[in-house]
Amino acid sequence: MPSHPFQIDAQLLADSHPLGHWQQLHLRLHRNAALPWVLIIPETEVLEYCDLSQTMQQNISLLGAALGQHYKRHWASTKINFAAIGNVVQQLHIHVIGRHENDPLWPDVVWGNPLPKRSYSDDDLSQWQHKLAQLLETLT
Amino acid sequence: MPSHPFQIDAQLLADSHPLGHWQQLHLRLHRNAALPWVLIIPETEVLEYCDLSQTMQQNISLLGAALGQHYKRHWASTKINFAAIGNVVQQLHIHVIGRHENDPLWPDVVWGNPLPKRSYSDDDLSQWQHKLAQLLETLT
Repeated sequence: MPSHPFQIDAQLLADSHPLGHWQQLHLRLHRNAALPWVLIIPETEVLEYCDLSQTMQQNISLLGAALGQHYKRHWASTKINFAAIGNVVQQLHIHVIGRHENDPLWPDVVWGNPLPKRSYSDDDLSQWQHKLAQLLETLT
Repeated sequence: MPSHPFQIDAQLLADSHPLGHWQQLHLRLHRNAALPWVLIIPETEVLEYCDLSQTMQQNISLLGAALGQHYKRHWASTKINFAAIGNVVQQLHIHVIGRHENDPLWPDVVWGNPLPKRSYSDDDLSQWQHKLAQLLETLT
């Protein structure tokens, strides 16, 4: 057991809404509603994706695949960006972002480019949380 | 067996030098020598990282971890960017990029931002290929 309980980085907290928790992975929805964009934050001190345990990588990928299917079905996403960058926030977090040829930034990446500011309503958020709970059920 | 032999996308070929091949993964060095930047191109028709077989993901991650250690040792990289984007080139390719607080783009991402143009000499390339062969030996 680590001596400190795991805490999500303050910047990640500020940038996202809580969606759920599964297998030591925190799921958070990026605040910008312009694109379907989930952050997966594993409960670990490891900083690099490739240094994660195989089990954690497998679980992240299962989640990523389920999110990808969800994005394709509900946002007509045609491409999933899957990335661990971490140049700004050091704590390991994996972006799973649905992209589409007609989205506001296509084909540019989201990082460092200005996305139109759109917010989720409380209803949107409830729906996301509900949908995520359903997705997690299919995984367990 | 697929009916066509696997071919690497023409844009990826143009952007990179061949480094090696391991476990159905092509390894290529991005032509820009400003940062240590390897592309891993799995021999597959799958387009999304999370849809790859677990075996391929494991092998990519083993390679990514070995490359990360190599970048940290020889380029003083402090952060590894690991990403499957694919908005421009559809064929699945995974970027493994070594970053450092003093690199030309820090903390911005490399995609869509202007890296200073630096090329590898033939000697540099030979050294890379030699080093990669050594890394692959530690994995098999």
